[in-house]
Amino acid sequence: MSPPTIQWLNGRVKLIDQTQLPNELKYIICRDVEALWQAIRRLSVRGAPALGVAAAFGVLLGIKTFRGNNRRKFEEHIKKVSAYLASSRPTAVNLFYGLEEMKKVVAVHPSASVAQLKKHLHQRAMELYEEDRRVCRRMGDFGAELIRSGDRVMTVCNAGALATVDYGTALGVMYSAKRKGKKFSVYACETRPLLQGARLTAWELLRGGIDTTLICDNMAATLMKQGKVDRIFVGADRIAANGDTANKIGTYNLAVLAKHHKIPFYVVAPLSTVDFKTKSGKQIPIEERHSSEVTHFGQRLTAPLKVKVYNPAFDVTDHQLITGIVTEKGVICPPFEKNIKKYAFNSR
Amino acid sequence: MSPPTIQWLNGRVKLIDQTQLPNELKYIICRDVEALWQAIRRLSVRGAPALGVAAAFGVLLGIKTFRGNNRRKFEEHIKKVSAYLASSRPTAVNLFYGLEEMKKVVAVHPSASVAQLKKHLHQRAMELYEEDRRVCRRMGDFGAELIRSGDRVMTVCNAGALATVDYGTALGVMYSAKRKGKKFSVYACETRPLLQGARLTAWELLRGGIDTTLICDNMAATLMKQGKVDRIFVGADRIAANGDTANKIGTYNLAVLAKHHKIPFYVVAPLSTVDFKTKSGKQIPIEERHSSEVTHFGQRLTAPLKVKVYNPAFDVTDHQLITGIVTEKGVICPPFEKNIKKYAFNSR
Repeated sequence: MSPPTIQWLNGRVKLIDQTQLPNELKYIICRDVEALWQAIRRLSVRGAPALGVAAAFGVLLGIKTFRGNNRRKFEEHIKKVSAYLASSRPTAVNLFYGLEEMKKVVAVHPSASVAQLKKHLHQRAMELYEEDRRVCRRMGDFGAELIRSGDRVMTVCNAGALATVDYGTALGVMYSAKRKGKKFSVYACETRPLLQGARLTAWELLRGGIDTTLICDNMAATLMKQGKVDRIFVGADRIAANGDTANKIGTYNLAVLAKHHKIPFYVVAPLSTVDFKTKSGKQIPIEERHSSEVTHFGQRLTAPLKVKVYNPAFDVTDHQLITGIVTEKGVICPPFEKNIKKYAFNSR
Repeated sequence: MSPPTIQWLNGRVKLIDQTQLPNELKYIICRDVEALWQAIRRLSVRGAPALGVAAAFGVLLGIKTFRGNNRRKFEEHIKKVSAYLASSRPTAVNLFYGLEEMKKVVAVHPSASVAQLKKHLHQRAMELYEEDRRVCRRMGDFGAELIRSGDRVMTVCNAGALATVDYGTALGVMYSAKRKGKKFSVYACETRPLLQGARLTAWELLRGGIDTTLICDNMAATLMKQGKVDRIFVGADRIAANGDTANKIGTYNLAVLAKHHKIPFYVVAPLSTVDFKTKSGKQIPIEERHSSEVTHFGQRLTAPLKVKVYNPAFDVTDHQLITGIVTEKGVICPPFEKNIKKYAFNSR
């Protein structure tokens, strides 16, 4: 199992620097909220659930420097810190979920002092950290039931330990299936432009002792046609109320291919990934990143310098293409609009 | 327009070294058949039609060293040279077509001397070179009729001047459309692992003054969903008798996406790309290349060293997914099995 992707350690945030993998397992220590913002922006820490925990830890970093006992000023300070953290990346809703959960702490303790609020906020951030660990293992157990021995499963990007505190969503399903003694193999799509599949997923699956084959994104269709893909598991950055799912660019591509080849396609995500304010995928903001991610490899230019580039970091998969959504409360099947609500608001 | 990709010059073969693009426009001079074989193998020259001409020039290089007047020995020598060249790459049928055309020269001159045969072979190679130039322009003219002003077209890999003597198949269509005054733009899929789309297609389209946007292969689906792709043009390495088409890996992916989004999908290839001995795509041998193409970028490792890799260089697109095949005799529509024969064997 991988070491924790993100930790709160003596008033600082300790992160695996994912830009250095698979070559080096290095850590970054963020002492202030600006350092964490930069780490999020340059993808040293990424993955929707990990960003939720990072946001909560970011609030803790932000309030460290607040002096005095003026609660109103403290609340304003928290708002400012939250708005700053929210500006780091626009698509993954878990980041906003983490911030919202911290704001709720303030709201439910209307007469607490600044010192007491700081304590409550710290406690809530730690709960979110533990919640992620627990929830990922639950999703893993539900999802593992979908894998049969002999299966060849496919995934894209990294929805693993490195995208969460320490277990993963789509890859958590694979870790749980392995624990249950199932034998299966994984095709990891490399995930251009930043190769999270090659750099991160292949790295952590091999560490986990799982039989893994790396492919370029454009090879998935051929494997499906050859009958070599039994099911697909992907993560999610935001799920709209109707089930439309934003995830790493290339996910929608796989979903269309899965439909054509009649292969089950599962999204694995905690219920905190559902954004009920977003009715359908059309309303999900999609982050576009710098052209140099596509035109350069490291420092090396691999395209004409003057070419235009379109570089969306995410795409949206229509709910009609999704077989099921694996959550910590079970596998949600269509009709998603109705069933997501049922799972989210019924205690199970 | 690009300079010739391949030329016969003073008893040598002069090639653009495509592994150096887009950073440098450098040439390689091949003085013997071994040097040419290596250039083909490491993809300094690639693209099905260019390989056909390269094969013919390779025979010329091979017979340079033959001494004496013994015709039987000369024929054996040609056979050996041809078998050697045929071993360079397995999928593109044009390479075998070039070799076959050279062997036919020997067959149709049963009483020619070695010296006469050398002259005839030289003449036939030059004809194949000129034929490629002529045929590409004819395909371009037929294909250009399919482009309307305002279109956004998509292509994959490089089916351009760099894949032929100097004009291109799929990109030739775009050059012809531009000459006819049509305004359109192109999305070039970068084409992992070797980035022929980014390195070669973007380079030559920009030189040709065509509005070009580079994307990663996994972004094509999103553009199609947004309604930003009006039609797709791709090249071909081998077309089976039933219309199934082998082309660069990722082509089949695009074809499935095109079907899902109801976008016309055209293959552009000379009739010499049709292999009537191959009944369907299932019989086309698919070259698998070294794992380091996927795990490394230049010298830099971008995946765990021990990960398994699947790296097919081509895929096969079922004829059912193809809207039309643009050839030098016109656009072939379904049913392909019947119509390909009609176009290939009727003089037009």
